[in-house]
Amino acid sequence: MPSTSLVFTSRDQHRAWLATQAALPAGFRTGTTRFDFIPREAPKPAKMTLTLLALDRPTPDFAAMFTRNAFPGAPVIVGRQRLGEPTLGAIIINNKISNVCAPGGVEAAEQICAATAKLLNLSPAQVLPSSTGVIGWGLPVDAMLGSLPAAAAALAGGSIMPAAEGIVTTDLYPKVRSAAVGAGRITGIAKGAGMVEPNLATMLVYVLTDLAVPRDVLRPMLQRSVATTFNTISVDSDTSTSDTIVLISSGRVPCPDLAAFETALTTVCRDLAEDVVRNGEGVRHVIRVSVSGAPDTSLALALGKAIVNAPLFKCAVAGNDPNVGRLVQAIGKHVGAHAPGTDLGKLRLQLGGIEIFAGGVFQLNPAKEAQLVAHLKGAELYASAPPKDGVFTAPIDYPPHERGVEISVALNSGSASATVIGGDLTHEYVSENADYRS
Amino acid sequence: MPSTSLVFTSRDQHRAWLATQAALPAGFRTGTTRFDFIPREAPKPAKMTLTLLALDRPTPDFAAMFTRNAFPGAPVIVGRQRLGEPTLGAIIINNKISNVCAPGGVEAAEQICAATAKLLNLSPAQVLPSSTGVIGWGLPVDAMLGSLPAAAAALAGGSIMPAAEGIVTTDLYPKVRSAAVGAGRITGIAKGAGMVEPNLATMLVYVLTDLAVPRDVLRPMLQRSVATTFNTISVDSDTSTSDTIVLISSGRVPCPDLAAFETALTTVCRDLAEDVVRNGEGVRHVIRVSVSGAPDTSLALALGKAIVNAPLFKCAVAGNDPNVGRLVQAIGKHVGAHAPGTDLGKLRLQLGGIEIFAGGVFQLNPAKEAQLVAHLKGAELYASAPPKDGVFTAPIDYPPHERGVEISVALNSGSASATVIGGDLTHEYVSENADYRS
Repeated sequence: MPSTSLVFTSRDQHRAWLATQAALPAGFRTGTTRFDFIPREAPKPAKMTLTLLALDRPTPDFAAMFTRNAFPGAPVIVGRQRLGEPTLGAIIINNKISNVCAPGGVEAAEQICAATAKLLNLSPAQVLPSSTGVIGWGLPVDAMLGSLPAAAAALAGGSIMPAAEGIVTTDLYPKVRSAAVGAGRITGIAKGAGMVEPNLATMLVYVLTDLAVPRDVLRPMLQRSVATTFNTISVDSDTSTSDTIVLISSGRVPCPDLAAFETALTTVCRDLAEDVVRNGEGVRHVIRVSVSGAPDTSLALALGKAIVNAPLFKCAVAGNDPNVGRLVQAIGKHVGAHAPGTDLGKLRLQLGGIEIFAGGVFQLNPAKEAQLVAHLKGAELYASAPPKDGVFTAPIDYPPHERGVEISVALNSGSASATVIGGDLTHEYVSENADYRS
Repeated sequence: MPSTSLVFTSRDQHRAWLATQAALPAGFRTGTTRFDFIPREAPKPAKMTLTLLALDRPTPDFAAMFTRNAFPGAPVIVGRQRLGEPTLGAIIINNKISNVCAPGGVEAAEQICAATAKLLNLSPAQVLPSSTGVIGWGLPVDAMLGSLPAAAAALAGGSIMPAAEGIVTTDLYPKVRSAAVGAGRITGIAKGAGMVEPNLATMLVYVLTDLAVPRDVLRPMLQRSVATTFNTISVDSDTSTSDTIVLISSGRVPCPDLAAFETALTTVCRDLAEDVVRNGEGVRHVIRVSVSGAPDTSLALALGKAIVNAPLFKCAVAGNDPNVGRLVQAIGKHVGAHAPGTDLGKLRLQLGGIEIFAGGVFQLNPAKEAQLVAHLKGAELYASAPPKDGVFTAPIDYPPHERGVEISVALNSGSASATVIGGDLTHEYVSENADYRS
C-alpha cells in the first residue's frame, strides 16, 4: 500500500501537492535546459532536455544501483566505475536518447562528464552521467556540449521540480516524494513509464538527502530498500538497459536515527515505485498483488510478478472484466513451469476483498460478479475513450487517485510474503508503443 | 519456416485450399451440433458447439499430451487417465466453457463421456473429453446431454472440415493440415488464438491417421514432434489450462516407413503451430526468430521466447517500426537475469536479412531504416484501421500470406539452435481481450 491515499481532481491541485514534496535538501542545486537537434540515425527534428543535479561540495556518501540487463547503456558502464571514486559532485542527465550500444557511447558519455566538470570546477570522475530514451541511437554530443552552459547557469536551490520535469520522456506527469527525518529531509524524483520491470533498480531515480549517513551504511541500505520497492514493480515485463537509482547525501544535517532514516528512505522509494506504475505507459488500473503464506519469498515475488505480467489478465482488468479464470491461469502457468512441487491445495484468492477461489474450485455467482465489476471500476484511473484517429491517449496529466485492483493470494503453506505492483494492458499502451519513435 | 508459402486473396480461395487438406483418414467420422444455453455464473444467452470425432472401431494406438499449467482443466485430468486405457473410440469436444476448477468439473466431464459412449456402443473410458473457452464456469451438462444425439446423428466420413470449424472460439478461420505417407494420410486440425504459450502441447489439436503405427512408437514420436513445433510458439506468453494434443491411428493402412511418418507428422504439427500463431488473437505480423550458435538448445529456445514475448518489441512490430533497441533489450533482459555468464561479444543480429547489430554496437543508418520498414510492411497480414466505436477487429477471415518478420540471432558461441514463432501486440489483441466474456 502507498503511504498516502491521495485524490486529485485537477492538474493544478496535483502540482500544488508536488510542490509540498519538492523541497531540495540542503547542499543541492538543480538546473535544466532544452534544445533542438537532428538524430543521425533517423534525421527528423527532435528535442532533448539536459538536467543538472549538483552538490555545493563533493560528497563521499553516495550509493547507486543499475540495471542487470546484459546490454547496459554507456552511462551505466561509466556509473559503475564512479562507484569506486572517492567523491561525487554532480549528475548530468539527458532524455530522448539512452546511449545504449551506440558506437563510441562510453567516450560520448565521458565527453559530457568532462565538459560538465569543467563548468562546475570538478574532475570528470566526480560527474555521473545518466541517459534515457531511444535505444541504439548515438548522443548528439556537439549539441549537448553547446547547451551545457545554459543548464549550469540555471542551477538553483529550493525546489527539485525543474529536475523532476526535466528527466521525463513518455511520463504523463513528474513524480516527487519526500520524507522528513529530524531536522533533515529525503527527497526523491523518478522517471519511467515503459520498459519497466526493474532488475535491481528502475528507469531513472534520484534520491537526495541532507542527512549525514556514511557511504558504507548508505549502500547496503539502498539495496534493502530497492529489494522491496522498485524490484517489486512491473509495467510491461520489459527491463530497461538504463535503469539507475542514485542516493546522495550532502551530509549537512546530523542523522538522529539510522533506523528512522531507513524507514523514511523505503517509504520514499515505495511511493515513487508505485508512482512509476500509476504513471506507467497506458496504465488505467494499478494492480496490487499481496502474496502470503508462501514457502519462501522468491516464490511469493515470482507469483506476484506472474500475475501482473499475464497479458490476458491485464487486458481483462483494462476492460473492468473480473475474468478470474485468467488470474488462476497465471498462477498455474508459473507453478506448473517453475515450481511444480508447490502445494496449491490450500490456495485462497480474493479480488477486492471478495473470495473467488478456495478448496480447489472457483467461488463465483452473479452477485459476486457485480461486486467484482464495481471494485474494478472503482480502481480505474480514467475511462478509455475511442479516439477519432485511432490513437488512444490519456486524457489526464495528474493521478486522480491512489486506489488499485487489490488481489490477495493466500497459499497457506508457509510464512513468506511479498507485494507486487503492476498495471493493466490497454489500447493506450499499444498506441504509445506502436509508434513511439516517429 | 512453414512447409508451404501460400498466398490467398479471398475467403473462398482459402476454404478451397483447406478442402484439399481435409480428407479424413480411413476409419474416422466426425459430427457436430450447435445449441443455445444460459451459463450459471453470468446468466446471459450463449452458444456452444459439440464436436464428435469417432473411430469406426476402438484403437490401442493413440497418444496425447496435455498442458503443464498447475490448474489443469477437468478434461485434462480425465484425459491423463485415458492414456492408461487399452483403447480409445471417440473424442467429444465442446467450446465456450473450458471446465477448469469448476465445482464438480470431473464428474461433469465423465457424465458427458458416459452419454457419448452409450450413443456409440463404447465404454465411458473409451471416450476422451475436451473443452475450451471461459475458465471458471461449469459445463451446462443438461443442455449438452440433450444435444449429444444430434452430434452422433451427424457423424460422417469424408471431410474433417465440420470438426475444424466446430472446435473454434476466437479463431478467425479453421486450421487444417495434411500429409500423405505411402497409401495413408495424416490429417490434423487445431484451434487456439489466445492464452497460447504451450508447455508441452497447445490449445486443442487433433491429428488423425490411418497409418498403422503402434502406441509405443506413437507416443515418444509425438513428444519429439511437439518439442520442435507447438512448444516453440507463443501468441501472448499465457499458458492455457486446457492445452491438449491427441494423435490417433485407426491402423487401416500399413505404414511403409516410420521415419517418413515422423517427418510428415512433424511437418503437419509445425504448419498447424504456425497457423495457430498466424491466426493468434490480434496477430498482424508473424515473428520468426532463428537463434543459432548457442551453447545449448535451452538457451536458444529461451532467447527466442524472450524476443517474441517482449511487449515493447511486439508493439514496435505492430507499428512497422524497426525499433531494434527493444530487440536488444529483450535479449539483454533474459541473459542478465537468467544466463549472466553468456558471451554476447560475438552476437550478430539481422532483421529481414539486414545486419543491425555486430561487434557490440548497433549498425544503423537511414538507408537501412527504410529497408527495415519495408520488410515489416511486407510481413503485415492486414493494416489496422481505426474503428468508429473503438473496438478493433480483424478485417479478414483467411490468411492472406505466410510471410513473417524474420529475425536472426547468431551468438557464434556454440552449435545449438532453435526457431521460435510469435506475433505482434496490437489494438486488435486488446479489443479482443478487454471484453471477451461480455
